Amino acid sequence: MVHSVSPTRYKVAYPPRRKLATEFADKLKETFFSDDPLRPYKDQTRARKVGIVFQYLFPILEWSKGYNLSKFKGDLIAGLTIASLCIPQDIGYAKLANLDPKYGLYSSFVPPLIYAVMGSSRDIAIGPVAVVSLLLGTLLKDEIDPVKDNEAYVRLAFTATFFTGITQAALGFFRLGFLIDFLSHAAIVGFMAGAAITIALQQLKGFLGIKNFTQKTDIISVMQSVWGSVHHGWNWQTVLIGASFLAFLLLSKYIGKKKRSLFWIPAIAPLISVIVATFFVYITRADENGVQIVKHIQRGINPSSVHKIYFDGRMMLKGFKIGVIAGLIGLTEAIAIGRTFAGMKDYQLDGNKEMVALGTMNVIGSMTSCYVTTGSFSRSAVNYMAGCHTTVSNIVMSLIVLLTLEVITPLFKYTPNAILSSIIISAVIGLIDYEAAILIWKIDKFDFLACMGAFFGVIFKSVEIGLLIAIAISFAKILLQVTRPRTALLGNLPQTTIYRNIDQYPEATRVSGVLIVRVDSAIYFSNSNYIKERILRWLRDEEELLKSNNQQRIEHLIVEMSPMIDIDTSGIHALEDLFKSLQKRNIQLILANPGTVVIEKLESSKLTNLIGQDNIFLTVSEAVMSVAPKAMEEV
Amino acid sequence: MVHSVSPTRYKVAYPPRRKLATEFADKLKETFFSDDPLRPYKDQTRARKVGIVFQYLFPILEWSKGYNLSKFKGDLIAGLTIASLCIPQDIGYAKLANLDPKYGLYSSFVPPLIYAVMGSSRDIAIGPVAVVSLLLGTLLKDEIDPVKDNEAYVRLAFTATFFTGITQAALGFFRLGFLIDFLSHAAIVGFMAGAAITIALQQLKGFLGIKNFTQKTDIISVMQSVWGSVHHGWNWQTVLIGASFLAFLLLSKYIGKKKRSLFWIPAIAPLISVIVATFFVYITRADENGVQIVKHIQRGINPSSVHKIYFDGRMMLKGFKIGVIAGLIGLTEAIAIGRTFAGMKDYQLDGNKEMVALGTMNVIGSMTSCYVTTGSFSRSAVNYMAGCHTTVSNIVMSLIVLLTLEVITPLFKYTPNAILSSIIISAVIGLIDYEAAILIWKIDKFDFLACMGAFFGVIFKSVEIGLLIAIAISFAKILLQVTRPRTALLGNLPQTTIYRNIDQYPEATRVSGVLIVRVDSAIYFSNSNYIKERILRWLRDEEELLKSNNQQRIEHLIVEMSPMIDIDTSGIHALEDLFKSLQKRNIQLILANPGTVVIEKLESSKLTNLIGQDNIFLTVSEAVMSVAPKAMEEV
Repeated sequence: MVHSVSPTRYKVAYPPRRKLATEFADKLKETFFSDDPLRPYKDQTRARKVGIVFQYLFPILEWSKGYNLSKFKGDLIAGLTIASLCIPQDIGYAKLANLDPKYGLYSSFVPPLIYAVMGSSRDIAIGPVAVVSLLLGTLLKDEIDPVKDNEAYVRLAFTATFFTGITQAALGFFRLGFLIDFLSHAAIVGFMAGAAITIALQQLKGFLGIKNFTQKTDIISVMQSVWGSVHHGWNWQTVLIGASFLAFLLLSKYIGKKKRSLFWIPAIAPLISVIVATFFVYITRADENGVQIVKHIQRGINPSSVHKIYFDGRMMLKGFKIGVIAGLIGLTEAIAIGRTFAGMKDYQLDGNKEMVALGTMNVIGSMTSCYVTTGSFSRSAVNYMAGCHTTVSNIVMSLIVLLTLEVITPLFKYTPNAILSSIIISAVIGLIDYEAAILIWKIDKFDFLACMGAFFGVIFKSVEIGLLIAIAISFAKILLQVTRPRTALLGNLPQTTIYRNIDQYPEATRVSGVLIVRVDSAIYFSNSNYIKERILRWLRDEEELLKSNNQQRIEHLIVEMSPMIDIDTSGIHALEDLFKSLQKRNIQLILANPGTVVIEKLESSKLTNLIGQDNIFLTVSEAVMSVAPKAMEEV
Repeated sequence: MVHSVSPTRYKVAYPPRRKLATEFADKLKETFFSDDPLRPYKDQTRARKVGIVFQYLFPILEWSKGYNLSKFKGDLIAGLTIASLCIPQDIGYAKLANLDPKYGLYSSFVPPLIYAVMGSSRDIAIGPVAVVSLLLGTLLKDEIDPVKDNEAYVRLAFTATFFTGITQAALGFFRLGFLIDFLSHAAIVGFMAGAAITIALQQLKGFLGIKNFTQKTDIISVMQSVWGSVHHGWNWQTVLIGASFLAFLLLSKYIGKKKRSLFWIPAIAPLISVIVATFFVYITRADENGVQIVKHIQRGINPSSVHKIYFDGRMMLKGFKIGVIAGLIGLTEAIAIGRTFAGMKDYQLDGNKEMVALGTMNVIGSMTSCYVTTGSFSRSAVNYMAGCHTTVSNIVMSLIVLLTLEVITPLFKYTPNAILSSIIISAVIGLIDYEAAILIWKIDKFDFLACMGAFFGVIFKSVEIGLLIAIAISFAKILLQVTRPRTALLGNLPQTTIYRNIDQYPEATRVSGVLIVRVDSAIYFSNSNYIKERILRWLRDEEELLKSNNQQRIEHLIVEMSPMIDIDTSGIHALEDLFKSLQKRNIQLILANPGTVVIEKLESSKLTNLIGQDNIFLTVSEAVMSVAPKAMEEV
């Protein structure tokens, strides 16, 4: 390995001064347009630009050009598969939101069509999803009783859906999509698992045929309901139907997992279960023996619901609040799915554009009797495995749902609720990602805390509380990091010019008379005092040690600034205080490798003059060489 | 400059594995006990330990041993000086809090005594301060009208003071003192300046002798009041007294600033003004011509007020809320002062212990008819300049106030309100630190935004709004930094093994076939997606450039991880995604210099195996040497 000898010492460079406006514009661009969405518009004619804008808004214009029969074959099969999966799920999920089954089907008709022309994910399957349905149901029920005042409840649901769409579209339009990144992966894992268990527990009502079931969602209330009704409230026929079909569904899932080419078995199992169970109830008239059934589902497609949305007053505010929460959770789910599959097929996904598409879809949905829809984890995975190529699979699914609404709905009359419960339980089990939780535990204990906080918050209290806990812990983590950043003592790796953390590299040796401290963070108001005092504590500890060993006292303190990416006014003051404290003890402060922003700010605050230009070096090694040349020769 | 040749390549070291409990304990210690307060207790006998605990709680036990006459001389002079300054200020500040003047004097008697035995700052002067008085007055008035229901108002004031103390003591006891660091220096500068202007504007009432004055504190309402009363509401005698003494006070301040040895002139000027003005009003009976006077101040020392504190019900909650806000602002002011002077005299200040002392002082204060007290900027500076050595100067001041309460208060009867207004105006002008604001502008534009946000929030709306804006902007800054961290392309400084940002060092040259990116931040959930996509964008831009120049394509992407101090599960996933994306393009991902925590987490997530141990290097230079040895020889 060749180390070349430098003939002249490089000085720490000052970056070219930028105008304030340029700096500000760059910062804005990096914050809001970090994905450079205007890239294709460069150097284009005006007409071409308009075309690009349309293509940008409606990606269907772009990919439809290359669309062909072979692609359609894939999309058709995928569409049929997800349709068979979504129909029974829709009916069940609508019940989670305390809505009539028809609204679940409505929501699988219009929104997928809108997404198909505006969305850019090729694999996502749009429709009602379990977690958002549960969340919406819980939040709406806190405001209005769905049984006593069903009309107002439904109106509030549409209002919330409207504002869900507005929230999503606004976030995307104002390029604030990065806000959803504040819900950490760990928090989502915990939240989803908690929601899945809560949803499964809710299904015990239908699964066991319990009549007096708690209105609450926490595990303790539900268990009390279940236990309290053990002797008289369970209906054995219902339990039999539910248990046997749940076993069938779980078996089909297991098969699909074992052999990926058999993915279609778990995908169509729910529909088969519904058909078989419905037929069974119809011929045995089990409904007369207490087996609860879906009863009549109104035939026909989505009626308009524009007039049902509250556009003013107290109810609008409530709908707005609920819509914002549901909108954020919906986005989180959809964007996570979109990114996962885009990564697998290696195409880019513009998060902000997706949000506009999802938002538009929900706004239009709220006007056509749909409730909040988003991308479904389970159905998107099936869509992907069934070989979808474009959003045409969503169109196929939508058309099948249309057919169902127009023709088949009356046939659902005798479908037992227990089978829907079994379908939901088998669907949400997939949301419990215990492997991810184990990995989180291994990698980051604080993340695990957020994960468990969200999980237990959801199952022991409610979905909102779980969500709040997850967000609070995630923020606490960020704040803790900026308040108590790491500092490390550095030593020289023998025979090199490399300086590393002596904790990580035990072979690194200290340089006598010099203390080298690395600060692993930007210095901001939130940590400037801590960093100053921590450095002084390193110094004090070191001096005591040296004193007890009768070694040379410390004459230079080198602060390695490579990881210090920024400094603010509080940080500058802290450095100045540090310099003065050291001066009183006859110790020279030396800075090594300040970055672009830091050197700029040191300069504009005149701190470079105070510390002395000669005490600012490009590398730790050069600084040591300059102040303790002997020490370096010794090694 | 000698570069030694390394005979063997150092590998990235894995730090020794620590037990979870040890890791957790270390983290807790660093967060809450970063100042190592238990240090003196090491290796001591039991009796000695008890002694140290007492000394810790009551620093007076420690410093009183070495106390002598020469020190007392300094403290006596300082104490007399700050007493002469505090008496007129107390009366004025009590009015800012809508309280009778006597409460201001009470608050300068008991709290300084408590602080004297428990506090560890030697220079701070305790008592009511302008900003906290204004804040308290504003918040209390929102709840109760001080004129209509004075009794309840006073009771709520004591309740708020009680909870101020509890908040402060609790923060200190639970070692949460770092929370006040979240109010940034810049925000404080803006907030203080805004509060100073608001306070000065409020004084126009007394200064101009306006009778119908607005209840609001914003500049527009106040100016309307002033303008509306210009023709009939101003009292010329009042204006004459106010203006002439304000001129005198400002002149004395100017003299004190010009010549530091004359610091006592501005210090005693207020008391002289009060005496002269009072005497003047008494002989001319100007009060009969509309000059408003203080009127009767009750004689005698602080009565007990324990029975006045609301310990339950709605009012307690209100008192609690106000107390928490006032407590935090009070702490911010006191700790800032304490740190400043501790830095100047080079002694250590334990922030958490200070908070316990300040809290205890306010709790006891609330029971002895005092309202919220803290350290005063102006009086502490005078205390320091007058040569105080210990908190004995506070005891001296307290005794003078006692004497005033017992003997002199009736003499204040004829003191014109205008003189108090002049004193307050001349005092708060010092809080407008425009030089600091200019420096903030030069160093950090975002800090300046926080500063101006707080400033305009206070003067155009209210103190609470200003405070909220300041905190919101401060947090936004932290969040922005963790959401959109910097990344940089690195190049080689010719003839060295050093790699630096090519923006900062234009002479740095790129290595053909290799892209070197440095990530200047921990990778957390809040930025993991951004960082992954930003790196891919660097790559895309570079590839396009190379393509257009027909140069060698990129085969290796080196991520310099030195500044990357931590990574969480989302970050690990992002790196994994990055690795897979690069793999699809036939580009090898290489990591350089991962730190302690990062390598640990890469290892526990098995990402090191995926990327390959051979693709993790100690330095960028070694990585380049390994993948592009030719490129290096060329330079």
